[in-house]
Amino acid sequence: MTTGSWVAVPDGSDFPIENLPYGAFGRDGAAHLGVAIGDRILDLHAASESGLFDDVCAPAALRAGCLNPLLASGKDVWRALRSRLQSLLLRDGDPALRNLNGSRLFADRKTATMLVPVEVGDYVDFYSSEQHATNLGRIFRPNAEPLLPNWKWMPVGYHGRAGSIVIDGTPIRRPHGQCKPPDADVPLFAPSAMLDLELEIGFFTGGGNEIFGLVLVNDWSARDIQAWEYQPLGPFLGKSFGTTISPWVVTTEALAPFRVAPPPQDPPPLSYLHIENDAAYDVALAVDLQTAAMRAAQIAPVTISRTNARELYWTMAQQLTHATSNGATARPGDLFASGTISGSDPASYGSLIELTWRGTKPLRLPNGEMRSFLEDGDEIALRAWCERAGLRIGFGACRGRITGGYVETGASSQER
Amino acid sequence: MTTGSWVAVPDGSDFPIENLPYGAFGRDGAAHLGVAIGDRILDLHAASESGLFDDVCAPAALRAGCLNPLLASGKDVWRALRSRLQSLLLRDGDPALRNLNGSRLFADRKTATMLVPVEVGDYVDFYSSEQHATNLGRIFRPNAEPLLPNWKWMPVGYHGRAGSIVIDGTPIRRPHGQCKPPDADVPLFAPSAMLDLELEIGFFTGGGNEIFGLVLVNDWSARDIQAWEYQPLGPFLGKSFGTTISPWVVTTEALAPFRVAPPPQDPPPLSYLHIENDAAYDVALAVDLQTAAMRAAQIAPVTISRTNARELYWTMAQQLTHATSNGATARPGDLFASGTISGSDPASYGSLIELTWRGTKPLRLPNGEMRSFLEDGDEIALRAWCERAGLRIGFGACRGRITGGYVETGASSQER
Repeated sequence: MTTGSWVAVPDGSDFPIENLPYGAFGRDGAAHLGVAIGDRILDLHAASESGLFDDVCAPAALRAGCLNPLLASGKDVWRALRSRLQSLLLRDGDPALRNLNGSRLFADRKTATMLVPVEVGDYVDFYSSEQHATNLGRIFRPNAEPLLPNWKWMPVGYHGRAGSIVIDGTPIRRPHGQCKPPDADVPLFAPSAMLDLELEIGFFTGGGNEIFGLVLVNDWSARDIQAWEYQPLGPFLGKSFGTTISPWVVTTEALAPFRVAPPPQDPPPLSYLHIENDAAYDVALAVDLQTAAMRAAQIAPVTISRTNARELYWTMAQQLTHATSNGATARPGDLFASGTISGSDPASYGSLIELTWRGTKPLRLPNGEMRSFLEDGDEIALRAWCERAGLRIGFGACRGRITGGYVETGASSQER
Repeated sequence: MTTGSWVAVPDGSDFPIENLPYGAFGRDGAAHLGVAIGDRILDLHAASESGLFDDVCAPAALRAGCLNPLLASGKDVWRALRSRLQSLLLRDGDPALRNLNGSRLFADRKTATMLVPVEVGDYVDFYSSEQHATNLGRIFRPNAEPLLPNWKWMPVGYHGRAGSIVIDGTPIRRPHGQCKPPDADVPLFAPSAMLDLELEIGFFTGGGNEIFGLVLVNDWSARDIQAWEYQPLGPFLGKSFGTTISPWVVTTEALAPFRVAPPPQDPPPLSYLHIENDAAYDVALAVDLQTAAMRAAQIAPVTISRTNARELYWTMAQQLTHATSNGATARPGDLFASGTISGSDPASYGSLIELTWRGTKPLRLPNGEMRSFLEDGDEIALRAWCERAGLRIGFGACRGRITGGYVETGASSQER
């Protein structure tokens, strides 16, 4: 606990001085890096001009339009910069920043246009929740062992599309794609009828294969497209039309007080995947849904899932170790996501295909609407926060609203 | 046919004036863009300073360290730039460039250090050769239909690792990874014992979802790692340790004379995948192998496979259309590869797992050595060229030599 900042931080804010996550926002037609504190953003570009950071971080890294140069700077720079920021923002700390009193030093967080803060190199998505992998195995292969033989030996994963990563609030257009209903002879090309969310948490790597920080990830999925296309090379277009991340990268340093032991691993992993102590993070997670009808009737979003990142079987350290075990290096700005996080309680499943058991148990919403999969106008918000001994930090929201796709060809051409 | 260039072009060169492919090479510690002609490279950075291109292309695009700004400029700029280059390099063309006589305008192609010419955004790998997909189906699922039900309805593909793309000549370190021999109870972590090549051709996209040009692609594959990891999410570490591309991007304009009809498609594809006329490219392909012992004995590389890109069932236009059919956009600099190209004749199979039928029919090399998969010291060179009516253009080489991996942990730590 610290004695707080001279910048006002409302009660229950995701962004007290103990957090200080990094993001990027639009200012004067350019992308500026910033640090969230309360309802304000410290503009790192503007603040760097004071020279107050010159001895801890290259000014160019703070004046870049994305976090990649800072990510590449490595752990020692991250630690020194965070320490300097905390000192300058503490109520009883170094008064140098406060004394500058520059009107350009801060921006209003609640009205800022946030941008994807990292030029994402490669995007890897894992499958590290045992309950999620078990649920999907039961749904897709009801007569077989739900977990495939490799699952408990390695963090299974695949590469996703980096180019379709978008920031909180970006509308998600319902994708078209090929799907083949079980009773059809031939596939059809149509808007997805099984549009789903996936509640995930991801991390960005920096220099030296180090984990810099974490974001929420909604890996939107078209289950009908995915089911028809995924053999034998894995998911492709069912997941490449949009992946939403939260705008603030919460650093591993801010998360250090919330490290906990991961679940036991049986069988014990091979030696290159040995478990570090307290390698999991105790991050509470929630999924909120608000439909267009709820919005029109001013009915608040309803929480459809609550779970925790500590439930993940494979830790982030194990994911990164495995992903680079063949000699591949992680670049500063690569994103590694956990895969859907589901707990053992059905109310903690992290996707609609699990929550509604592939649509066989639709959700009843507060206004009487039913949902098996997402409809146009539905908005999903992922939330994440950590709490311990009076300290609370959060991730900010990771939201996306579904918009109709369109039919591109011939007489049926129409907005959906 | 043109009347040739004032720059000397040796007989049989891959790079006559009809080709003019783009690449990047190291000069004065920086990456310069260049155009290959004969054994020379026209330095686009240096040439742009003459102002001779200012009316067809933004000088910044020619002075960039990678092709991405040129790719983003779009088709009209590509066409105008190529036309200007041809005019300036023609023996009887515009003498302006020749009259400059600048010593910095050209570099020696044979001694230049070539660089990956594009900052690759996303890398997609397809599976578009019917014979290859059939072969792998027969090898991996001997008692089932070799082609899965979706294969003839869509160009099946997946995302690979953009960060491990390397240029011709880069050594390929044998990867470590988990594999599980059929008779073992538990997997082990060891150097791959089934290291393979994949003969592919790929294209880079530019602005407006247009195809800019083609390169050779060797998608090195560790079959033992791949076999254990790939279910259910597809290939991951078995293919992410290195993907070699040839250094010169051969433009679709240079390839226009070599467009041919693709193989018939049955069933006819869905309307969004309709086939354009002459959408295939008649590109002859070869794989050469030279082992360390052959090199020591000065035995020339042996050609172990000959095939042709026109054999691909799915065309590049169909691949790109499919990959973007869900609303995803291709960015300038995305790379899309064909998947292994195999013809119907066993001598035309594009990988060792096919050529040796998973090691059951090893290759006998000219010096008596046998090969099932690649050994340390083996060098693979892919080659590609087009020939028609006296015109011949080529791609240059796509080479890689296998170096030993190393064991990272404990008492067994040693160079392999």
